[in-house]
Amino acid sequence: MIENSYTFLIQYFRLLKSIDKIDFEKRNGIIPVVVQDIRTKDILMLGYANKYALTKTVETGNAHFWSTSHNRLWMKGEESGNIQPVEKILVDCDSDALLYLVNSMKPACHTGNRSCFHNELG
Amino acid sequence: MIENSYTFLIQYFRLLKSIDKIDFEKRNGIIPVVVQDIRTKDILMLGYANKYALTKTVETGNAHFWSTSHNRLWMKGEESGNIQPVEKILVDCDSDALLYLVNSMKPACHTGNRSCFHNELG
Repeated sequence: MIENSYTFLIQYFRLLKSIDKIDFEKRNGIIPVVVQDIRTKDILMLGYANKYALTKTVETGNAHFWSTSHNRLWMKGEESGNIQPVEKILVDCDSDALLYLVNSMKPACHTGNRSCFHNELG
Repeated sequence: MIENSYTFLIQYFRLLKSIDKIDFEKRNGIIPVVVQDIRTKDILMLGYANKYALTKTVETGNAHFWSTSHNRLWMKGEESGNIQPVEKILVDCDSDALLYLVNSMKPACHTGNRSCFHNELG
C-alpha cells in the first residue's frame, strides 16, 4: 500500500514536471486541445486549456478545459453528464498544442452530435 | 465544357460564401486547424488559418496555413515537399475551428515523424 502510494506520487510529480514544459506562454497562457476518441479515432471537439485546466485533467482523469468566452475552468460533461475520461495526453512537437485521447461513447457536441465537426464547408 | 465551367464557378462561389460564415473575428482573425489523415484517421498536426489561408486551401486543394510566428501564409510542404492534398474541410459547431482531412502518406512533422503529436505527457 505504501509502495503503491509512493509509485503514485512519483508518477504524479513527473506529470506536474511535464506540464511545466508546455509552452503556454507562446499562446498567451491558453493552448488548443484536440479531443479524439481513442477507439474510433474520430475527432470529437476542439477546446482550450491553460495550465490549471491541464493540471485538473491530469489530477481527475476527466477532460477539463479553459473557456475562452467565459474565462473560467470547465469540465466536459459538468452539465450534460457527457464526461470524457482521458486515457492519454499527447503534446505536439512545439509543446503548444495538446491531444486528449478519450474513452467516451457520448455526444461531444452541445447540439447532440457525436462530434462538433459535423458540418462540411460548402 | 461551358456547362462544366459553369458548375465549377457555382461550386467555387458557394465555397467562398461558406468561408464568409467562418467566425475568424472571434479569434482575432486566426483559428486553429486540425489536420487528420482521411484514411487512417491519425491526427497529423495542428496549424492556424486566417481567411486568406483557408481561401488558398480551397483554391489550390493543398493545405495552407497562417504562420503565427512569422506572420505569413505558408503551404504545407513548400520546403519539404510533403504537401497535404485536402479532400474535405469540416467546420466545428461554433464556426471557429477547422478540420482538414488530407490524403498524404508523408511525414507531417518537421522532425520527420508522421505526426507532430508523437510525445506523451509525462
